Amino acid sequence: MTKERLYLYDTTLRDGQQTQGVQFSTAEKKQIAQALDDLGVDYIEGGWPGANPTDSAFFDEAPKTKARLTAFGMTKRAGRSAENDDVLAAVMNAGTQSVCLVGKAHDYHVTAALGISLEENIENIRASIAHIVAQGREALYDAEHFFDGYKDNPGYAIAACRAALDAGARWVVLCDTNGGALPSEVHRIVAEVIAAGLPGERLGIHTHNDTENAVACSLAAVEAGVRQVQGTLNGLGERCGNANLTSLIPTLLLKEPYASQFDIGVNRGALAQLTHVSRMLDDILNRVPMRQAAYVGASAFAHKAGLHASAILKDPTTYEHIEPELVGNARIIPMSNQAGQSNLRRRLTEAGLDVEKGNPALGRILEQIKVREDLGYSYDTAQGSFELLARAELGQLPEFFEVKRYKVTVERRKNKYNRMISLSEAVVVVKVDGEKRLSVSESVDETGSDRGPVNALAKALIKDLGRYSAVLDDMRLVDFKVRITQGGTEAVTRVIIDSEDDTGRRWSTVGVSPNIIDASFEALLDAIRWKLVRDGEAK
Amino acid sequence: MTKERLYLYDTTLRDGQQTQGVQFSTAEKKQIAQALDDLGVDYIEGGWPGANPTDSAFFDEAPKTKARLTAFGMTKRAGRSAENDDVLAAVMNAGTQSVCLVGKAHDYHVTAALGISLEENIENIRASIAHIVAQGREALYDAEHFFDGYKDNPGYAIAACRAALDAGARWVVLCDTNGGALPSEVHRIVAEVIAAGLPGERLGIHTHNDTENAVACSLAAVEAGVRQVQGTLNGLGERCGNANLTSLIPTLLLKEPYASQFDIGVNRGALAQLTHVSRMLDDILNRVPMRQAAYVGASAFAHKAGLHASAILKDPTTYEHIEPELVGNARIIPMSNQAGQSNLRRRLTEAGLDVEKGNPALGRILEQIKVREDLGYSYDTAQGSFELLARAELGQLPEFFEVKRYKVTVERRKNKYNRMISLSEAVVVVKVDGEKRLSVSESVDETGSDRGPVNALAKALIKDLGRYSAVLDDMRLVDFKVRITQGGTEAVTRVIIDSEDDTGRRWSTVGVSPNIIDASFEALLDAIRWKLVRDGEAK
Repeated sequence: MTKERLYLYDTTLRDGQQTQGVQFSTAEKKQIAQALDDLGVDYIEGGWPGANPTDSAFFDEAPKTKARLTAFGMTKRAGRSAENDDVLAAVMNAGTQSVCLVGKAHDYHVTAALGISLEENIENIRASIAHIVAQGREALYDAEHFFDGYKDNPGYAIAACRAALDAGARWVVLCDTNGGALPSEVHRIVAEVIAAGLPGERLGIHTHNDTENAVACSLAAVEAGVRQVQGTLNGLGERCGNANLTSLIPTLLLKEPYASQFDIGVNRGALAQLTHVSRMLDDILNRVPMRQAAYVGASAFAHKAGLHASAILKDPTTYEHIEPELVGNARIIPMSNQAGQSNLRRRLTEAGLDVEKGNPALGRILEQIKVREDLGYSYDTAQGSFELLARAELGQLPEFFEVKRYKVTVERRKNKYNRMISLSEAVVVVKVDGEKRLSVSESVDETGSDRGPVNALAKALIKDLGRYSAVLDDMRLVDFKVRITQGGTEAVTRVIIDSEDDTGRRWSTVGVSPNIIDASFEALLDAIRWKLVRDGEAK
Repeated sequence: MTKERLYLYDTTLRDGQQTQGVQFSTAEKKQIAQALDDLGVDYIEGGWPGANPTDSAFFDEAPKTKARLTAFGMTKRAGRSAENDDVLAAVMNAGTQSVCLVGKAHDYHVTAALGISLEENIENIRASIAHIVAQGREALYDAEHFFDGYKDNPGYAIAACRAALDAGARWVVLCDTNGGALPSEVHRIVAEVIAAGLPGERLGIHTHNDTENAVACSLAAVEAGVRQVQGTLNGLGERCGNANLTSLIPTLLLKEPYASQFDIGVNRGALAQLTHVSRMLDDILNRVPMRQAAYVGASAFAHKAGLHASAILKDPTTYEHIEPELVGNARIIPMSNQAGQSNLRRRLTEAGLDVEKGNPALGRILEQIKVREDLGYSYDTAQGSFELLARAELGQLPEFFEVKRYKVTVERRKNKYNRMISLSEAVVVVKVDGEKRLSVSESVDETGSDRGPVNALAKALIKDLGRYSAVLDDMRLVDFKVRITQGGTEAVTRVIIDSEDDTGRRWSTVGVSPNIIDASFEALLDAIRWKLVRDGEAK
């Protein structure tokens, strides 16, 4: 049986940016677009050119993708032609292959929000879509408030869609803009509009999660006949978010009836990167990944119940609906080391540590990771600290030096010009090769600006480590991430430091403490020790 | 029309406790049970008596509830009578009105996991349920893996359910134990088993969120005829969690077709407490509440998109499917570079600042926001700081006090037992009502643990602010978020602090500096000033 093509349309960069607290930089947009393209989505909606400088800059510098890069905008305003609408012109000027325009499909919104006649709105849709098509671009019409509109005035909602289709739109996207529609209702309405003559192979679905049904509404629409699904990675988006592609993709690819019926452009190889892509987005946003996220959450395949865990050991299919490896995730069975050992050996090999199967250190390393993750550490991203932990258990980590004590002072006061200034100072006392050394540094950089206490501490620590100082000369801190997380029963601070050196290497280390300075110091120590190990000082 | 009764069965205290990292104390279980009873659920599953000491203790001390308190266990084991099964005896000994027993409904699990014959399993179900009924209790049978079982061997899955019903079970709960069933499949199978003779008014549904469809699967089962819905508050539970009652309750109570068809025992008054109950559970678990949660999330009614925000100002129903007040939540129109003057005025009105249209301060406020967002500030989430910025431009912000200087010291060294310990100390010098005041605090809390420099600084600052100190007595820092961001050409640290007080108010403030302590101090100052303004000290 030939499979039908079902198209995936990602709007992480546009609707996803409507998430409270989310504002992507142009560089971040490029990084996300690349990841989406690698995943295999069909459309990447990049933003609204002209609406803000970041979106415009992104389209100027957009990476070359297999996916169709799409600019978003709105239908032309009444009282001017499509050619003379400057908002629409800015969207067209982004030069994308595809252009998606939102326009009203609910009569109430036309009269109440736009204040124009119902006929004018239809004409705005028609003329805008025709304008896109005339320029040789692919046109999409986002039928805003389609489901509410259909419930109030089905004839008008359908007429708006038909105007777009007649003008040459490749797709009409049925939007549940306020997120209020429920799955069975979406199924019924989509079936009705297809029966009324709208062609399913030119319809898309765009849902929001306001009742926690966005994924289900999307599936219901697909079952009723639409052939394009819109959503975002990790379900980012306005209010409660958009339909979560991170959940929809594996469901469509792995589960029946969808797996047999559809080709969605994402292949098995890309699917195995899904957990990684999801975590990358959280990293960019500096968000704590949702442990309970479907498919990609750290808990998604964690079997805590005693009954479940013992059955899983006999046969994983007893309590898992798919194999975690398919989405790049991993099974977690508390109190059992067996599951993780092969995984662990692979990561150790990657770090240049060959450990034979059955080495008892493997069990100890897994146990240490479990204990420390319970305290708030995270070895997912902090590969440098993971490597040091493993080396310690394997007896392959020299002490290098011992920190006896440190002291950091941050002071804010008026200077002689009566301006408030800040200054941080750090004193570090270490013992290297049996000798005690005191170093002091302050936080002011070459330009006279205060760079803060962690900077002062880093400088003081590196300043005098005896024979090691020379090796550390080219090391720089490039990123510093802080999260409040759960450590046992108390909230603690987790600091992840990214470092690099002149060889171009970049490594991440982690520190955890209720005290942010301590947590930073611990991550810093790991960063230094990792470089000493890698630069061959581990003798 | 008389409404049909649809029953809500909460398993937060049992299946919810299977969430990774969750372990309720007996006192917490009692507090949650009380909140569930106030909400109006019909059943509260309290745990598995005999399986762990907390669960047993909870049943001993359980609060008197209108809801039926239910003990959970498993059907008797093969080779002994129900009367002589000690695991079942422990469950019965909890003395609850209702008892729910899980038992296999999937033939493969009977033979592979239990290693008994299919007939023995049926007999275990029958005899266990009959035993409960004989003791005058209400019996529920949890049909484990029902949907997978039905797909493999429909006759056996139905026979297991029928055995329980024939033995007198009030309810048979169809469980999708591994979370793999999808909504349309659940609808089809439930409709088939009812057609096959299982009475819908004695069937329940228990789903998991492994494909992000637990809520939709529950609704599908209700539409197909079941009359009991199981779930947990905030969707806690094994792996990806159970069906989220916090989403299901408002959908069933407020939205069609459910609202007209069913009486669910929760009334409008209790519904208005839903957001509060959801946050209370997060408080108990010391979790940061999910901003994007349906209905109860802080972002659930936040309108960031410029187009949406301006329409909302004309008519809230344009982009909201329900009124936020119905679930005890509130509308937010965040300030961001995507929003304009009308939105700003609305936001100011909500903060109690009535500014007439055309007031030149409006332009200045927007300009200030733009300038400061370029420096790395974010007023999207930091509503408290936004309000202060606006007040400053409007000339409605008293100085309260002046910070002359501060100094923070963080020290890490060995104590007399040769253990490394940390201690932070902060000195703050302020001028209040013309008088200079010096305060000093250290970071150690009541338990002797170091809470870090920001904590010390907060304590020192609040300690002596003259006539303002009393007002600040009930203020607490509840969250602290740090990210490195771009401020002009330099990387800077942005700190967002969430505070709350005994009135239940919660507010966010922001600080930006290359120095993390300075950034924290700035956010802290805003948090204090916001409370002073709101508590009427702005005279």
